[in-house]
Amino acid sequence: MSTPQPGVITCMAAVAWGAGEALVMEEVEVSPPQPLEIRIKVVCTSLCRSDLTAWQSLASPPIFPRIFGHEAAGVVESVGEGVSEFREGDHVLTLFTGECMTCRHCTSGKSNICQVLGLERRGVMHSDQGTRFTVKGRPIYHYCAVSSFSEYTVVHSGCAVKVSLNAPLEKICLLSCGVAAGLGAAWKVADIAGGSIVVIFGLGTVGLAVAQGAKLRGASQIIGVDTNPEKSEKAKIFGVTDFINPNDYDEPIQQVIKRITSGGADYSFECIGDTGMVTAALQSCCDGWGVTITLGVPKVKPEVTAHYGLFLTGRTLRGSLFGGWKPKSDLPLLVDMYLKEEIQIDEFITHNLSFEEINRAFDLMGEGKCLRCVIHMPK
Amino acid sequence: MSTPQPGVITCMAAVAWGAGEALVMEEVEVSPPQPLEIRIKVVCTSLCRSDLTAWQSLASPPIFPRIFGHEAAGVVESVGEGVSEFREGDHVLTLFTGECMTCRHCTSGKSNICQVLGLERRGVMHSDQGTRFTVKGRPIYHYCAVSSFSEYTVVHSGCAVKVSLNAPLEKICLLSCGVAAGLGAAWKVADIAGGSIVVIFGLGTVGLAVAQGAKLRGASQIIGVDTNPEKSEKAKIFGVTDFINPNDYDEPIQQVIKRITSGGADYSFECIGDTGMVTAALQSCCDGWGVTITLGVPKVKPEVTAHYGLFLTGRTLRGSLFGGWKPKSDLPLLVDMYLKEEIQIDEFITHNLSFEEINRAFDLMGEGKCLRCVIHMPK
Ligand SMILES: NC(=O)c1ccc[n+]([C@@H]2O[C@H](COP(=O)([O-])OP(=O)(O)OC[C@H]3O[C@@H](n4cnc5c(N)ncnc54)[C@H](O)[C@@H]3O)[C@@H](O)[C@H]2O)c1
Ligand SMILES: NC(=O)c1ccc[n+]([C@@H]2O[C@H](COP(=O)([O-])OP(=O)(O)OC[C@H]3O[C@@H](n4cnc5c(N)ncnc54)[C@H](O)[C@@H]3O)[C@@H](O)[C@H]2O)c1
Ligand SMILES: [Zn+2]
Ligand SMILES: [Zn+2]
Ligand SMILES: [Zn+2]
Ligand SMILES: [Zn+2]
Repeated sequence: MSTPQPGVITCMAAVAWGAGEALVMEEVEVSPPQPLEIRIKVVCTSLCRSDLTAWQSLASPPIFPRIFGHEAAGVVESVGEGVSEFREGDHVLTLFTGECMTCRHCTSGKSNICQVLGLERRGVMHSDQGTRFTVKGRPIYHYCAVSSFSEYTVVHSGCAVKVSLNAPLEKICLLSCGVAAGLGAAWKVADIAGGSIVVIFGLGTVGLAVAQGAKLRGASQIIGVDTNPEKSEKAKIFGVTDFINPNDYDEPIQQVIKRITSGGADYSFECIGDTGMVTAALQSCCDGWGVTITLGVPKVKPEVTAHYGLFLTGRTLRGSLFGGWKPKSDLPLLVDMYLKEEIQIDEFITHNLSFEEINRAFDLMGEGKCLRCVIHMPK
Repeated sequence: MSTPQPGVITCMAAVAWGAGEALVMEEVEVSPPQPLEIRIKVVCTSLCRSDLTAWQSLASPPIFPRIFGHEAAGVVESVGEGVSEFREGDHVLTLFTGECMTCRHCTSGKSNICQVLGLERRGVMHSDQGTRFTVKGRPIYHYCAVSSFSEYTVVHSGCAVKVSLNAPLEKICLLSCGVAAGLGAAWKVADIAGGSIVVIFGLGTVGLAVAQGAKLRGASQIIGVDTNPEKSEKAKIFGVTDFINPNDYDEPIQQVIKRITSGGADYSFECIGDTGMVTAALQSCCDGWGVTITLGVPKVKPEVTAHYGLFLTGRTLRGSLFGGWKPKSDLPLLVDMYLKEEIQIDEFITHNLSFEEINRAFDLMGEGKCLRCVIHMPK
């Protein structure tokens, strides 16, 4: 028995034609899924700071025209050759860093950095370095091999995970990147111990998800640092006990934190995307056992600089990509936790927008006026 | 019953009058030990690269005149008020980073960075910021609050540890810094797992002690990197399986290592004192679980610089001071291991010199012609 081969789909996508230029709604042709790929009808997609940073392209080579979006939930429309894991109608979350299940990293318990389907930086698909989008015949680049700012998109079957049909896609799309990234940084990467002092630089969705994770682990003090005073109120909901605005002090922020913590925090997290703040985070944690976790994707200078003495006196610097989660294996557990009300997601959603309003999401994030904007695709 | 108070001792010391200037044998006056201090008759002291780096003072403010030396073994000559732990005749190792036993770090199982008697950088004693040496009335600065390039020296009782009378002081003095620092970096800080791939940058005493530690943990491959081809033979004794001289390659050393290890080592160690090589060490370890331990004290640029992506893809950077050992608590265990022939020390000693020949030790180390020179003080 042979099923009919899926054909090209023509639909609307928000195309970025150049760095920092407003997205333009275009009719795009979306190829059928290639072997081991699936095509997804995107239902909801939220805007993450990483989209904005890549769109601005201040620190990375500009790759345009491009379709951004990597935090998304949708429904499988069709599957490519060799795909047995998914079928039409499955609900899925997209994965900006995939899991092939067979490489040395996927089969190790110690890594979530798949060597086959890891973070894609050149704007193409992992399998053939090609694109699945065209506008009037012109190829359009992908972002993180997800590109969810399109009614339909094609992803590798290792870059999506099936989720319960009970889970509301307009909420759990946040688990596709930011919220899961923050929770995992607190739980899997830092492995915060109860009673700890935690300091978080940057109280966007990622930083506040770290706060939520720290609170659920029983941290005794959660210090949130943000230059935007409007973050203070919302931060309380997620467990931040002390809000600090660096602009309120004459001394460097790391000195303030060392003082109020009597020597430095047990854990510090960089959730801004500013490598200078990674240094401040290292300086804000204590001798002996202080751990700094860097999550941010820098807008400008990609190099972290720190005095060797910070390390010699016992500090550790680690990075966290997608919270250390193995995306396919672990994400369903987070969806379950949400359904059991063990973790909060709804509180991160400050705006619900229609697809046509997508540039407003970019504006809101650029102006620091939102946590997550959820973009609802046409039905 | 009152014991007679110890008086000033006049003896010979090797004084550094200026940065990089040959040490001069001077008659020095050594004060009696102050409360909680002890005065030690130094028996043997070896030269560590940290002495040389501080003597050159290229990256640190010059503090002169000064008596260097911090890797030493000796006999207690007298004790200050309130010292009950030591008495005249005890055999001791000096500690360049002390252990007060009562601060938040000393009482925690997670840190060896004593907040009271930690690394002293200003050339004075911890207790009163004063010195215990004078030459014709002029104060002479200390180094690491140890200053063992003197027939007699005064140290805080928290900066020495009693050792078995059976242990040969002319060998175990190496445990006072370099050898213990390397073993601990491998065992306590990196906690190397059996079967691992390890790469070590710099095959001096510290790097080769890391190799010995890695070998005893059952590492499957121990790659030693050194620009001095003479290090190759000796390295084998300590377990180095592959010797690499970066000068033999056109490509950057981290590329060579990534290639021969199919993606990078599990652990990398910087044992040179070159922050540029910390970056190379980070680049030489693998995605996902690669750990870089930095031990070196930089000769010049003290800042470590690394691309944030190295961390985001799963690398960890930690520092190791004195191998993470709690100096007073743990050092006797290493002495015991040596006495039971479970660890090698003798093989690190390439030269035995008399005190008068001390400048030769500086020359030999400067020229890369020695591992450890043991300096034997007059009887
Ligand atoms: N590692 C990962 O897996 C992962 C996943 C998602 C996002 N990210 C990255 O994490 C970072 C945060 O993402 P987000 O979506 O929460 O972004 P966001 O823009 O919503 O939040 C960033 C916060 O940092 C604050 N801020 C900016 N400059 C500051 C400064 N100098 N001092 C203090 N606060 C400052 C802003 O006011 C804002 O509240 C971004 O760099 C993003 O690219 C990483
Ligand atoms: N963290 C600690 O507790 C601790 C303790 C002792 C020493 N140290 C530091 O550790 C470092 C090593 O000490 P050591 O006594 O073994 O020194 P050493 O001088 O005996 O050894 C350093 C080795 O590095 C090699 N080297 C120099 N430049 C190199 C390069 N670019 N690439 C590869 N190899 C290079 C040299 O040839 C030499 O073999 C020093 O910086 C020292 O200050 C740290
Ligand atoms: Zn994201
Ligand atoms: Zn994989
Ligand atoms: Zn202490
Ligand atoms: Zn030393």
